Amino acid sequence: MKKTLVIVGLGLIGGSMALALKGFEDYEIVGVDVSQPTLRYASEHGVGDRVTEYAADVIPQADVVALALHPQGILDFLHTYKDQFKPGALVWDVCGVKSAILEGANCLPDTVDFIGCHPMAGTEFSGVEHAFAELFQGSHFLLIPRETSQPEHLALLERLAAYMGCKDVHRTTAQAHDALIAYTSQVMHIIAVAVCDDPTLFDCKGYEGSSFRGCTRVAALDVGLWTQLFSLNQPALLEVLDRLIGNLQSYREVLATGDRKALAEKLAFSAARKRQMDLPGPDLLE
Amino acid sequence: MKKTLVIVGLGLIGGSMALALKGFEDYEIVGVDVSQPTLRYASEHGVGDRVTEYAADVIPQADVVALALHPQGILDFLHTYKDQFKPGALVWDVCGVKSAILEGANCLPDTVDFIGCHPMAGTEFSGVEHAFAELFQGSHFLLIPRETSQPEHLALLERLAAYMGCKDVHRTTAQAHDALIAYTSQVMHIIAVAVCDDPTLFDCKGYEGSSFRGCTRVAALDVGLWTQLFSLNQPALLEVLDRLIGNLQSYREVLATGDRKALAEKLAFSAARKRQMDLPGPDLLE
Repeated sequence: MKKTLVIVGLGLIGGSMALALKGFEDYEIVGVDVSQPTLRYASEHGVGDRVTEYAADVIPQADVVALALHPQGILDFLHTYKDQFKPGALVWDVCGVKSAILEGANCLPDTVDFIGCHPMAGTEFSGVEHAFAELFQGSHFLLIPRETSQPEHLALLERLAAYMGCKDVHRTTAQAHDALIAYTSQVMHIIAVAVCDDPTLFDCKGYEGSSFRGCTRVAALDVGLWTQLFSLNQPALLEVLDRLIGNLQSYREVLATGDRKALAEKLAFSAARKRQMDLPGPDLLE
Repeated sequence: MKKTLVIVGLGLIGGSMALALKGFEDYEIVGVDVSQPTLRYASEHGVGDRVTEYAADVIPQADVVALALHPQGILDFLHTYKDQFKPGALVWDVCGVKSAILEGANCLPDTVDFIGCHPMAGTEFSGVEHAFAELFQGSHFLLIPRETSQPEHLALLERLAAYMGCKDVHRTTAQAHDALIAYTSQVMHIIAVAVCDDPTLFDCKGYEGSSFRGCTRVAALDVGLWTQLFSLNQPALLEVLDRLIGNLQSYREVLATGDRKALAEKLAFSAARKRQMDLPGPDLLE
């Protein structure tokens, strides 16, 4: 008899996982979503082996449950279904904040093995109609084991990540993950929206250069999702944001003094860091 | 007899102008540069009709002189050659700061008509070997007339910009130009270098997302050039930088309160501005 892998939430990520994981070992892939149009689309396009509206019907039988909801949706789902998971089940999530999710998962009974994950893939679109099986090709899969995580579950997630097309699985801590994401992604979004708050924005329409477009591209963000991501990663994000503001202030100060030599030295330091960052390394040489 | 249009500085911009302006009306295009390899390359590749090392030989006969040096180089050139321009000559520059250049041009005698210009084109490369005639195709040409600017010179620059391939000529003031450039370009470069100053930069190598790469792309900048551009536009840049830091602080504060509703409202405001900015307008519909 086949085992059951339930994916809760058939958006861009969950839908793409449901497509990418079809045929994985001896698992039947079952998609769950509350939206009728999403279920109809998923059913018509083979997103998973079958789909259902009712999580309560499939969660108690599921060997593996992947939560692909927005962060608050994951926390709410864990709270609602905490006593309905099958004893021995592996439950994991895919969202972009980890400390808050792992803390929320403490509500689960000891019989459930919860492991935080983050396949680092995405596009600027959302919804099942933009899902595609190749979304995870070449991406990193971040894995946050807990002390109680079962080795066979960690091994299962590694095989699963490889089957989806991820190029590697990197084990880290929730704290390190959240600091990484705060810096490499979240604060870039804060910069983008803050730049767009400048009162002269519309006066510049048509005169933006490529640096402006590169910096502000992500400002037209999904407000609901990013409110949750920022809020649930508040401590790490505040730290990065304070460091950024400090580094901007530092440039402001040297600029204000009019000391060109000091400004040139500071720019040389930063530009060298960027060039160092862009050198081919283990990641780029693959 | 042909008129003479001298281009001083055969780098990416000056070299591309020397290529793009060949055949313009009845002008002979004469390139000036102090670098022997640059002169040799220019001569071998037809960058301009002829080239010379000696500005003093050609400036006194030139009807039009275009200064395509770095900003400080323009200021120094004006100071050195102020008494050698032909009476009635049009002198213009192409650099990305205007108030400081126009102030520097006050050293010229009244017989010389200096007009600040800024063809908004460029690439990440520099040097005559990267110059190409099509560089200005579709770009804006910003023109900063002075009270004493002669209408026939303004008209000449408009024809010249059109001949180079610029899609329009926009007349503005030095102050408005410098505020525009401080916001749309300079502060984007300050952001990029400040982000790279974060101590965790190298820990994130290989895990940068597209938002990070988009924001920091321009951080590997030409230190000499940008030190001049920032320094010579200090007042406008400080204003924009202070507004940006204020807008980041404002996001920091609402994030620190933990008030999700307020954060969502703030994000919705900024994201709507970005979407509004991206709507097709006069510029995009062309």
